Parts: sequence; structure tokens; C-alpha cells
Amino acid sequence: MNSFGRNFRVSLFGESHGTNVGVTIDGVPAGLPICADDFTGDIARRKTGAKGTSPRVEMNIPNIISGVFNDHANGDPITIIFSNTGMNSKSYDSVKDIPRPSHADFVAAKKFRGFEDYRGGGHFSGRITIGLVVAGVIAKKIIAPIEVKAEILEVGGSANINEAIDNALRERDSIGGIVQCVAKVMPIGLGEPFFDSVESVLGHLLFSIPAIKGVEFGEGFRCARMKGSEHNDCYVSSAGRTATNHAGGVIGGISNGNDLVFRVAVKPTASIAREQNTMNFKTNQMDTLSIVGAHDTCIALRIPVIAEAVTAIGLADLLMEEKTHE
Amino acid sequence: MNSFGRNFRVSLFGESHGTNVGVTIDGVPAGLPICADDFTGDIARRKTGAKGTSPRVEMNIPNIISGVFNDHANGDPITIIFSNTGMNSKSYDSVKDIPRPSHADFVAAKKFRGFEDYRGGGHFSGRITIGLVVAGVIAKKIIAPIEVKAEILEVGGSANINEAIDNALRERDSIGGIVQCVAKVMPIGLGEPFFDSVESVLGHLLFSIPAIKGVEFGEGFRCARMKGSEHNDCYVSSAGRTATNHAGGVIGGISNGNDLVFRVAVKPTASIAREQNTMNFKTNQMDTLSIVGAHDTCIALRIPVIAEAVTAIGLADLLMEEKTHE
Amino acid sequence: MNSFGRNFRVSLFGESHGTNVGVTIDGVPAGLPICADDFTGDIARRKTGAKGTSPRVEMNIPNIISGVFNDHANGDPITIIFSNTGMNSKSYDSVKDIPRPSHADFVAAKKFRGFEDYRGGGHFSGRITIGLVVAGVIAKKIIAPIEVKAEILEVGGSANINEAIDNALRERDSIGGIVQCVAKVMPIGLGEPFFDSVESVLGHLLFSIPAIKGVEFGEGFRCARMKGSEHNDCYVSSAGRTATNHAGGVIGGISNGNDLVFRVAVKPTASIAREQNTMNFKTNQMDTLSIVGAHDTCIALRIPVIAEAVTAIGLADLLMEEKTHE
Amino acid sequence: MNSFGRNFRVSLFGESHGTNVGVTIDGVPAGLPICADDFTGDIARRKTGAKGTSPRVEMNIPNIISGVFNDHANGDPITIIFSNTGMNSKSYDSVKDIPRPSHADFVAAKKFRGFEDYRGGGHFSGRITIGLVVAGVIAKKIIAPIEVKAEILEVGGSANINEAIDNALRERDSIGGIVQCVAKVMPIGLGEPFFDSVESVLGHLLFSIPAIKGVEFGEGFRCARMKGSEHNDCYVSSAGRTATNHAGGVIGGISNGNDLVFRVAVKPTASIAREQNTMNFKTNQMDTLSIVGAHDTCIALRIPVIAEAVTAIGLADLLMEEKTHE
Repeated sequence: MNSFGRNFRVSLFGESHGTNVGVTIDGVPAGLPICADDFTGDIARRKTGAKGTSPRVEMNIPNIISGVFNDHANGDPITIIFSNTGMNSKSYDSVKDIPRPSHADFVAAKKFRGFEDYRGGGHFSGRITIGLVVAGVIAKKIIAPIEVKAEILEVGGSANINEAIDNALRERDSIGGIVQCVAKVMPIGLGEPFFDSVESVLGHLLFSIPAIKGVEFGEGFRCARMKGSEHNDCYVSSAGRTATNHAGGVIGGISNGNDLVFRVAVKPTASIAREQNTMNFKTNQMDTLSIVGAHDTCIALRIPVIAEAVTAIGLADLLMEEKTHE
Repeated sequence: MNSFGRNFRVSLFGESHGTNVGVTIDGVPAGLPICADDFTGDIARRKTGAKGTSPRVEMNIPNIISGVFNDHANGDPITIIFSNTGMNSKSYDSVKDIPRPSHADFVAAKKFRGFEDYRGGGHFSGRITIGLVVAGVIAKKIIAPIEVKAEILEVGGSANINEAIDNALRERDSIGGIVQCVAKVMPIGLGEPFFDSVESVLGHLLFSIPAIKGVEFGEGFRCARMKGSEHNDCYVSSAGRTATNHAGGVIGGISNGNDLVFRVAVKPTASIAREQNTMNFKTNQMDTLSIVGAHDTCIALRIPVIAEAVTAIGLADLLMEEKTHE
Repeated sequence: MNSFGRNFRVSLFGESHGTNVGVTIDGVPAGLPICADDFTGDIARRKTGAKGTSPRVEMNIPNIISGVFNDHANGDPITIIFSNTGMNSKSYDSVKDIPRPSHADFVAAKKFRGFEDYRGGGHFSGRITIGLVVAGVIAKKIIAPIEVKAEILEVGGSANINEAIDNALRERDSIGGIVQCVAKVMPIGLGEPFFDSVESVLGHLLFSIPAIKGVEFGEGFRCARMKGSEHNDCYVSSAGRTATNHAGGVIGGISNGNDLVFRVAVKPTASIAREQNTMNFKTNQMDTLSIVGAHDTCIALRIPVIAEAVTAIGLADLLMEEKTHE
Repeated sequence: MNSFGRNFRVSLFGESHGTNVGVTIDGVPAGLPICADDFTGDIARRKTGAKGTSPRVEMNIPNIISGVFNDHANGDPITIIFSNTGMNSKSYDSVKDIPRPSHADFVAAKKFRGFEDYRGGGHFSGRITIGLVVAGVIAKKIIAPIEVKAEILEVGGSANINEAIDNALRERDSIGGIVQCVAKVMPIGLGEPFFDSVESVLGHLLFSIPAIKGVEFGEGFRCARMKGSEHNDCYVSSAGRTATNHAGGVIGGISNGNDLVFRVAVKPTASIAREQNTMNFKTNQMDTLSIVGAHDTCIALRIPVIAEAVTAIGLADLLMEEKTHE
């Protein structure tokens, strides 16, 4: 299932080294202003090239091939594609023999019986997330005045990002990080019982982002060590404002109007230049592997804009769902 | 949406103080042996009455009203209902005026415009999870030989459960906890790109369980402080076994055949006997609230069997999905 | 899939000779007035006992077990069950050996590998449609002021219903019929491109009713013999009223505000007392079969209220979908 | 909803006068051989240019941008796009003022509040069906050895197609027709209770094809005038073969192994050169309209390959569904 959403529906397609990657967004209300320039900012935030990110040069010009007419959504599905450029497919010839540790090479080969596009991670590549970013741009327009903003809290266990990246580069290693996302101006009542709680919908989307291994709302894992008298958020206004926001804005799976707050754990990039000892599936012997080429030292750096995007996608879907009850 | 699953489809209905709660499970293969006794063990594990759990006496006799014929699934939807007994609805008369902090009272009233069944949490009650447990029993039969087993890691920050509960009871407070779940004998290849990764599907289900505020796979949040060279799981057998299992058995969203491992954070029960300062929505003034009645001191104690259930439900759905590709 | 609908979601369960049949309706807006009496009229229209219908005595008292609180929808799924009574399961012992021609006995046994509930048609029984009728009652409230009204056009090729039934009873045979349904006060704009045209959604639902073998909108099959100049509906008001309504109120799959008009073909009841020559699957020889027991001579007589119900269900779903675009 | 299918999922996008139209097909098993040449035959059968069809010259070269690797499905979504060429958008400037009778112009303007792409029918254009045809080519591979074959039964009420077209051309009018489709080598057991009967799934898809106003299975509307003793299909082999096939191969919504047979009614093309009297929405007065440009005299001629495609799509989806029960 490369699709998500019941009302605001996002479908992703494409492979890292194919001709294009893209996204179809169905359910966008006719009349929403959309033009190519709208995507520039968030695409730039996701892009490669900065310190700690992949040096792969991506051509990220959105080609809107349907659903927009005279700079407005026309009610039809919006399909946007991006050309792939700057790939070096040759460097992936060996992954069939020595699947890269903690990459999808091995599971993809098993699941798709050897027919998978193994070049650059194929459909498992982070490249595919560009479709999420453009869908997020549209979703942000729909959920206004809700404002979604994500930022890096720490990388490699440190809040000094620059230093942590430098250390990792020097060690030819990679590092993980934690990203926090906050949505302000939240309405009360988003989220559906039982299975489509705000946490369920956003958790589903967040865990679909490559490299995310943990999601927590409000106090998250810290709540397990708190007492009810510490953790409870008491009401201080009849509009539902609470004195504290340990719940991260979600109670019973439903938004309560306070800020929505969550954090995600981003694992260290699996591709590292350091030598690793791993199985050679051709010789059936242990072997060594050093991964060369264009990789992110810290993929967490590129996650905030994607986390914002899926948050906006999820909230747009829930907002539209809420309208069906009116 | 009170339903989950594309192939193994679970729908929940009922309210805490209504006549019944129940579940419909659609998609169960005809011929699967099912009888009322199958449910006894897991229902007992979820039940109230033990130290630290609610003293509410629940009559938990499953009434199978469709889908089972001669002790086998017959291919039709399986509906199982449970009578509600032992409720004291009167004690909830005040929640419309003073919504309980960190309970769904306030958001339910807003979302459902005052028409919600506010007695005992209504449809937001943990009572509803009994349907998950029986669906889980059936799902476990489908996913065999996969074995799913969850256990309490800690409550109130301590691994000494007994002592922590005693302390909380003495303080008339509540405590949270952490539950770990492991699935063994996992096949390779479960999970669907892009949006239906194993983490996405299980995260979705786990976050639908009341009181869960965090979900992490493998190392989870710890991965954010690890280096790639530490976190990567190198292959040591051509069957895909890895020397370590930091990923918790999921790579690229797909199961890799190693043990599936995750943890959830369970918040402290919102209902506490201690006095809380909170808004009285009738007088529009701050007021005090002491919650009396039957409550769990540590709801985390009842989560393992529910966590197992949703894990089995999610894996059953993915297993059936995988069959469509054959 | 025993469920239908994206916004107004109907799930059916139960078997003809089980303890109960029922329905769960999810997505009903909180606050909609609902009480048991609301169902009386439409349930009576569906019931057995009149000339030409089955003499089986059904106890059709709706037992609302969730989703309604103080005579209003409370925002939770509404589950309504009906006890089964008056069954004679013994008379079905032979259907495993001699599957009844044009009944589901044979296909059910194959599909469900011998585990199907074969008594009285099991889940394939018309009994199951009582859930549609009660869902339809709720849907009609939601789509108001749209009015849906279905009626018999002909049975056994004749508009003289009484005479046609008498003839069939005398011949110990069964007869088919045609039902027409009209929805008035239609809004403009229901239906979704591409796959969820009004005709697609209603066709889907109508073809799920047992015994329906044809569905046509507006002129239907007659349009195939018309010229464009005859069939086109020219506009005569800027509100979209057309001089003719050959299209039956649907253009491009979207409602155009004129009356929605369709007809369904209902096959003659498969159960007939007359002797039939058919295979005995036990002896693997041709055999004879005379079906005794409680059967409808003309099932078409009971279809109008069911056709109305599914029409209301489909329109409610599309109306709620339309709200997501606002 | 521009998507259909639970297992074999087809999503359409694009507008008649946009840069491209296309389709995404998700759920295709990895390893299925697919190359561009596979599509040539069915695309040619759909194409314009023959007598009675539109003279618009379409460039119908499939551009496979994802999901196929080394001439095999790779397990990812398959996206195929087609460039639009040969459009004359200018000729549609007037449809905002004088919506064409029995075209979607009026309903699209209402539904999408004036933001619709009105050029050449936009997303309502038959142009969009090229995506169905290529999805159908892939579906046919999946359902093999099932063979689906559709043909024209009559146009303009006559089986003499050539003569009927000549007459219509001379009269500057259009004509409708009837298409019959037969699927041979059918397995027993396709179709899901209650809502996903074979008739429901195919009816849903067939009614999504522009211009289809009626669908009937087996005897279809003729069954309404038959007696049970005439209409019943008695078994003559223990494999389920029946002496007659009045049911068209579907009993209780489930395929019974006999040939699947259905017919669809195709309305006469709405675009006619003859003058029509209709409302001018700008002047709010009755006006006259003569439609010039490239139109099909008998759109029914182009329907068989599309009917085959949606039949294959629906059967592929049901076949894959059936596998989940194994």
C-alpha cells in the first residue's frame, strides 16, 4: 500500500534510480490556490548538499501534470513528478551479493523475489519522500490556521549539531538524532475513535518515514515514570486550555486544543564508510564492506520538513473527516 | 473509524455503561477452529480485580453471535458481544460539569456536541478493549507459528512492581509503566511499502490503545544517540540472521526474520483519588475534584495482553496481505 | 467484505439460522434523533407473511446495543441486532448432497471449503437484509430532504401483481419482477470522479442485494436504441432543470439535481416446489429435487424497501463525502 | 475517489487537455513480465480514427515511469503516463456559458465551484480511460487463464453496425449500443459476501465508464419475466457445470465456474452536430447549440476493450482477495 488517507489521499510512486519519482494527491478541494513556487521553500529544506547530508545533486523541479488549472486545484487528483538525475547506478551492482547492513536490500530481495529495483534503495530510498514534502505543502494550506513546525532537538546525543556532525565525518561514521514537532492553533475534536486517534494516524505516517524508530507524544516515555498527580493536565479555562500539556495536546486520541507536541527518534544512517563485517550471500562467507558514494552522515537533519509534511497530511485527513460529521 | 485492517478486519462497538460491548472480525479464513473456551485465558489476563487494577467486576463471557459454526470459522464475519454489568452510572453525573483531567470527557463533549455517552468514559473506556483481546486470540491462531509475548518492564520507574503499586495505593495516586512485546518465529517480508511498514501498522494499532503515549522499535529512542557502526545489524547467516538486533526485526519497514521487538509507554491512570485543581465548566471557576469509584492504580498492568492482541491483529493483516502477492 | 461505505459505513453480520443477525453503522453524526420506533415502518414493509412472500414468521424487534444514548446518536458505532426465530434447520440437511439450483449452496461450500453455515442459506440468506433496512432508516434521516421511494413496476411480466402471484402459486413456481426507485429533491454535485459515480456507488449496493441481476439508470437499456438528439437532456433553467430526464438525474456520474431514477431486475426465487432435475453430489448422479418449506413466491415484492435503503445508504455516503470538499 | 480496488489498486489522473493523463497500479506481484509492447494491442483497439469514432489524433505511447525493472514488475506501484496531443482547447471557451446537454460541463462547474478544467471534458473525458486499458492489460496477465472478451451486440438498435453508423453520420446525430462481455475459464468462488459480490464489483467498475447507463448479468432484465422453473440453472456435473447459464456465471454473488456473462448499455454520444435548444447560462435565455469538433458518432464502438479492462481489473482484485483466505 503506497497510499494513505481516507479524505486527503496521498499515493507515492517511483524508485531512486528510475526516470521519475512522484506523488498523486486526491481529495484536494477545488479552488485551493496552488502553483509551482509554493513548493520551493519546503523542497529546499529537504534537499541534499549541506554539511552532514548527501552530496547527491537532486534536480527538484516539481512537474505538475494534473489537478491544477489556472493556479488553483480543480478538484481532480493532483499528480506531481520529479525527474531523477545524478544517479550512479553502477555502484549498486554488489548489493545483491552483499546486502548492506540495516538497509532494505535483503528484505526487498526476499519480499520481491529478486525482482526488486535494488539501485540506490529503489522504492525504499529516502528519495521517495520528496512526494511527501509536496503533499505536505498542499496539506499545510488546507489545515491553516494550524501551524506545524519541526526542529532538530539533538544529533548524536548532543545539541551542538555542528560539532557532532564534524566528529561523525571525521570518524567516517553516521549519527542519529531526535526531531520535535509542534502544531499550534489546534482545533478541539480532531481524531476518530477507536482506531483513528491523532496518535494512531500520525504514528502511522511518522513510522512510514525511513529511519524513524520511535514516536512519542507529550511526555512520551517519560510519562511511564510519572504519577497521575504529576502527569494530569488540569483545565484552567472553559475553552479547554490546560495548566500543563503533558499529554501533548491529545486526550483519548482526540485533539484538545492545546499544542500538539511529539518527538521522533531517527536512527543513524545505515550507509557508513567504515568497514563492516557482514555476510556475503554469494560466497556464503563472512566478508567486509565499506560503503562509498553519496550518503547522509546524519539523515535526521533532513527529517524536520518531512515530519511537518506528514503531520499536515494526517491533520488534513482528520479535519476533512470531521467535516463529514457536521 | 472504529475499524482497522484491510484483510483481517476488526470493528469495535459499545460503551462502558451500555448494555453490551463487542467486536466484529471479518476476513477470518473458513475452517479455523474457534470455540468459546479459546478466549478464556487472554480474557482472564486482561481482567480487573488484581492488586493495582480496578475492582469493577466484569462479566466477561463471550457470546459468539455469528461467524462460527460447529466450532469452526464459517467464512462469515464473527461477531462477539459481552454484557456490561456492575456499572454505577450515577457517579458520572458530575463529569459534564467538571470534566476529569486527562480523561476524554471534555474532548468527547466537544466532538459529539454534548450527545456523547459520558458514563464511565463511554466508547473511550478501556472496557472496549475486550473486543481487541478476543480478536487477538483469533489473530494469534492465524499467525502461528509466530509467537507474540508481552510483559511489564517497569511501573512507576521501578522493576519492583509490587512495591511500586503499594506506594501508589498509599499515596492515593496512580503510576505509569513500560511494556515490552516480542514476536518470535517471524517470517521475512511482512510489511508493505510505503505507508504500511510493520512499524506503521503496529504503531497505528498500539496508539489506539488508551493510555499509550510512546512506541519504539528495537533500540527505539536510544538509537538517536548511537553511531551507525554501533546500530547497524550485520548479517551472520544467509537466512538473514543478524549478529545484533538493534532494529527490532524491522528494516525498511519490512520484517527481516529476526525477533520483532518493541516497547510502549503507558501513562499513569488519569483517575486518581487525590484532589486535583481544575475548571468547573458550569460555574466557570476553578474547583477541586477527587475521583472516587473503581479505577486502576496502574493501567499498565492490563496492557500486555492488549499489546499482544493488536500485534497479532496487525501481523495477521500483513500476512494475509502478503498472500495476495503470491 | 461485509462492509460498505467510506463515511456512512455499514457492516452486516449473522446467518439465517444463527442466534442473531445484525448491523453496525459507523459514522452517524452525533445528535441525530434515533429510537426503536423509527424502524417499525420500514421493517414492516420488508416482512414476510403477505401473499407471495415467505410464511416464515420473523421476530423483527430491533435491539440497539450501542451508539444511541437518550434517543440520539452519540457519535459511536450503532449496532443493532435481531434474534432469529422460527427456523427449521432440519430441512436443510440435504443441501450438502443436492445443492439447490441457483442458490448459493454450491458456491458457498466451495468457497468456504465445507465449513459454511448451510442452514437456510446462512449468510447468503435474504434474512441478512434486515440490517440494510435499519441502516437505510438512519440514512434516510441523514439525506433529508431527499426523498427516496421505490415501487414494483411489474412481476412475472405483468403489472397485475395479484393475478401474477396467483398464477405462480397455482403452478408451484416463482416469478421475477422489476422495481423502480426515484429520489426527489436531489442536490447537484453528488458522486465522485472517476470510480465513485452515483451509478457506481448505487450499482455496487444494488447488486449486493440477493436476486438483483440488472440495474439501469434513466432510460437504461433503452438508451442503446436512441439517438443523441432524442436522448440528450437540454437545460431549461439555470438551476439545471432539464426538459427531459433520460439520464435519470446523473450526468458524468454526478447528480444534476433532477430526479434520480433507476430500475432493478429481480430474478424469480430460486426455491420452487416444482420438481427440478439436478446433480446429486453424493451419488454423482442426476437426481430430482422438490423444495419444501417457507419460501417467497416472488421475492421482488420485498425488494422496494431494501432498494430504498441502499439508495439512502449510498447517497448518505456521497453527501458526507461532498462535505469533505467544503 | 479516483481509485479502485483493495488488492489490485488502480488510480487515474489527468485531464483531457492537460499535459498528460495516467494511471498508477499498485499491488502487482513482483516478477510479472511487463514491457511497453504488451500494451500496444489493447491501446489500438481503444483508439480513435475509425469510422464512427472521433478523428482526434491521440499519441498513445505508454511512458512507464515506475514499477517495472528489467521488463518485470518489481513490486512497487506502476505509473504509466501518456502525453496529450492534438487538442484544440479554444473550442471549449463557450461551455462555461452554454453547458453542453448531457455532458458533465454543468455538474462539474457546480461541484468544483467554477475551478474545474472545462476543456474537452477535463477529468470527465473518455481520454482518461486509456489508463483503464493499460491497467486492464496487466490485470489480464494476473487473471490468466481466465479469458475476457467483449464485443458489440448492436448499435442504434441494429446488428448492422456499418449501416447504423452511416445513417447516424448522415443525420449528424449519434447512436448508442450494447456491448456483451464473456469471461471464460472462470474459477469457482470469486466474490465476497455481502457487498463485494462479483456483480457489485463489476457493476461498480462498469458504471464508472463514461456513457454506461445499464448493466445486466446473465439473462439480466429478461429474468424479471421468467419463472423460477425456467430461470434456474440445474447442475449437470459435480464440478458445478450447469445445463443452462441464465445466471451468467454468478450465484449468490459468487462465481460458479460457468462463463461469466454480462451486457452494458451505452448511451448515444452527447456531442452532436445537430442543433439543440438549451439554456444559455450567461444570458439566462434559451439558446441553440451545434457542437463542432472531434467527436465519436458511436462511443459504444470503443467500449469493448474498456469493458474487458475493468472486468479484468475487478477479477484480479477478487482473485487476490481470495488468496488472503488460503
